[in-house]
Amino acid sequence: MYPAGSTTEVKLITLLTDFGLEDGYPGIMKGVILGIAPDAQIVDLTHLIPPQNIMAGALALSRAVPYFPPGTVHVAVVDPGVGTQRRAIAARLGAHFFVSPDNGLLSVVCHQAQQRGEPVAFVHLDQPDYWLPRVSRVFHGRDVFAPVGAHLASGVPLAQLGTAITDPLPLQLPDPQRLEDGGWRGEVLAVDHFGNLMTNLTAAHLEGLSPLQVRLGRFTIPDLAQAFGDGRPGQLVALIDSADYLSLCVVNGNAQQATQAQIGDRVIVERQNPARDRR
Amino acid sequence: MYPAGSTTEVKLITLLTDFGLEDGYPGIMKGVILGIAPDAQIVDLTHLIPPQNIMAGALALSRAVPYFPPGTVHVAVVDPGVGTQRRAIAARLGAHFFVSPDNGLLSVVCHQAQQRGEPVAFVHLDQPDYWLPRVSRVFHGRDVFAPVGAHLASGVPLAQLGTAITDPLPLQLPDPQRLEDGGWRGEVLAVDHFGNLMTNLTAAHLEGLSPLQVRLGRFTIPDLAQAFGDGRPGQLVALIDSADYLSLCVVNGNAQQATQAQIGDRVIVERQNPARDRR
Amino acid sequence: MYPAGSTTEVKLITLLTDFGLEDGYPGIMKGVILGIAPDAQIVDLTHLIPPQNIMAGALALSRAVPYFPPGTVHVAVVDPGVGTQRRAIAARLGAHFFVSPDNGLLSVVCHQAQQRGEPVAFVHLDQPDYWLPRVSRVFHGRDVFAPVGAHLASGVPLAQLGTAITDPLPLQLPDPQRLEDGGWRGEVLAVDHFGNLMTNLTAAHLEGLSPLQVRLGRFTIPDLAQAFGDGRPGQLVALIDSADYLSLCVVNGNAQQATQAQIGDRVIVERQNPARDRR
Repeated sequence: MYPAGSTTEVKLITLLTDFGLEDGYPGIMKGVILGIAPDAQIVDLTHLIPPQNIMAGALALSRAVPYFPPGTVHVAVVDPGVGTQRRAIAARLGAHFFVSPDNGLLSVVCHQAQQRGEPVAFVHLDQPDYWLPRVSRVFHGRDVFAPVGAHLASGVPLAQLGTAITDPLPLQLPDPQRLEDGGWRGEVLAVDHFGNLMTNLTAAHLEGLSPLQVRLGRFTIPDLAQAFGDGRPGQLVALIDSADYLSLCVVNGNAQQATQAQIGDRVIVERQNPARDRR
Repeated sequence: MYPAGSTTEVKLITLLTDFGLEDGYPGIMKGVILGIAPDAQIVDLTHLIPPQNIMAGALALSRAVPYFPPGTVHVAVVDPGVGTQRRAIAARLGAHFFVSPDNGLLSVVCHQAQQRGEPVAFVHLDQPDYWLPRVSRVFHGRDVFAPVGAHLASGVPLAQLGTAITDPLPLQLPDPQRLEDGGWRGEVLAVDHFGNLMTNLTAAHLEGLSPLQVRLGRFTIPDLAQAFGDGRPGQLVALIDSADYLSLCVVNGNAQQATQAQIGDRVIVERQNPARDRR
Repeated sequence: MYPAGSTTEVKLITLLTDFGLEDGYPGIMKGVILGIAPDAQIVDLTHLIPPQNIMAGALALSRAVPYFPPGTVHVAVVDPGVGTQRRAIAARLGAHFFVSPDNGLLSVVCHQAQQRGEPVAFVHLDQPDYWLPRVSRVFHGRDVFAPVGAHLASGVPLAQLGTAITDPLPLQLPDPQRLEDGGWRGEVLAVDHFGNLMTNLTAAHLEGLSPLQVRLGRFTIPDLAQAFGDGRPGQLVALIDSADYLSLCVVNGNAQQATQAQIGDRVIVERQNPARDRR
């Protein structure tokens, strides 16, 4: 996705958390980072991951990473287990670096790197020299992950930050199920700011299903749109979104509100077959 | 507004979108920009323009631009027509550069530049060399506007990014109407974070209306306040806001909640005349 | 808190306001800052302080400052008195600089600096040379505080920005009250993004109360947890938070929603004594 060959000498660090924007928690992490790496460039991915929702964080991270330059350090903190025995980890996945709790938050980006045949390496962060001097049991984003990210961006080798591990905690994303008639049963994986319903079905699942239809609850959508503007305002359409997933959208509207769909709701893609369709 | 003569060598890029803050879309645009222009300074104007509301975006942009240094590149994306035949454009308006869909989003800043007698120039972005290699039909903020903004900030001349055009799509803002008795009928144009009701009436419309009153629905406000603190807490006041528009505000409170006013509601300014006033 | 001896040549400026994120007000302040100090690093602490809530702003500021490098300039604007006779001030408190309205917003950070025996100095901002040429009566964040912050970060001495004063407006935070049986009666001071209830009780108030219990309304919490993950999901726990205050939290949940507690609600810490406890 990223233009091959481009590199940067800039220390680029992204932040993804469920810390919200009211209280200053992300700003505190930036203070810690800039104390260690004063010339770092820090980019917020989002701080509005639903509280403690590791899967939502893993998905959002995987959508953003391909658009950052090689060498970027991504600090991701959705951390319901902070202060318990859960490990803190850092990783190199392809050309990118990551720092996060060991709870599956990196599993989607790791899976993607492996699918591309890129090297992956993990360490257990067990070297307190790279943390703040005093570590609370409730805010490792500030006390552990931010300083480790700053040191990584400043050139400290991954291996120096902790002990190599090969068993980061996996996170199981729901896989689409093949149907007898050749279609697929997937589900709604996330809802974005516009109310677009993102599914776990990709362009690959749609091959050979032409003319196809998409079903969600009592709604049946005939065929794919190519762009939001291809439909009438208010129309429910299905299209391949900017991360190559099948997404259900209302033109100039909000598909979540229009369909009342929830995360986990079933989405069917299948060859059109009016005789079979239930109402 | 901006101190004359000040310039900057920094590559300063602002972002204004309706993408929200939950999903990481603005962060992805920053990844693309920093891959092309690693030393760019990126400033978020807002990502909370109401979805697809071009007029709200055009107004917010026009309020911010005068406070940025000459040479700043403003990337503005409120884009219900993404992926259709709507053009993508870039512009030089006075000392500032702009990148956006051709849907009226730049019309207020363009109008302001023309009123100041500054040069304006537009191009149709038809040179894919300055886009990401692969362009989706649903996220041109990432695939077209962010990379073009980064190239502009890096010194690529406007003319190289596309073909000159002279017919950018205009956006008609509602104009205040003169009343028979010398007053003006305007309307609520926007509601801000504090619930302040911003109108399309300016200080110029109030000239010669002394002592004046302001009417909104069943509320009549006698005269202008100079500052929020000039009224009692809870009092509805009218004042000239920080962008020189007439604004209706509740002191230490929320005028939208207090009046239940909506965008488009009529606002009258007129000379005080108790005999004529309806209740 | 901050590693001793670390310094930075970077011009680091933080922003804390109640301006919200919809309208572009914080972005406008950044435009002003970068026009004066093009190489400044600007960090948002938060722009979601509840409108006009000076105490909430003072608390959020005090939690963030210790994690920023010496020399950082903090621009804090929660300013219900903008445009009235309230003074604008700047300060040096220990190793940090501050710019804000004179309404108590700096009183917590000032108190903390004094407790550490650090020097404090205030000036009344009465030198318009360091403001924007035209100053509105409704947006001093843009017209006064942002430019003064930029000049401070650029090396203009505090004394040059205004006349020394020794009477900044104090803000009285509610103090915990000692109870007859040795416990303390405190209160809920703030609610964070996760619904955690932050109190005005600190670790020091809990000394000698072992085994202790915490009471809030009809809820009694036996003893302290060390981390969120020490309890069962859904359990109401009390712990010392990342700023050393007693905080009431629901594991993987929202304590504000679970308890319906409000800011100002009474929180008791006391030695366990089942016989005395009311239902």
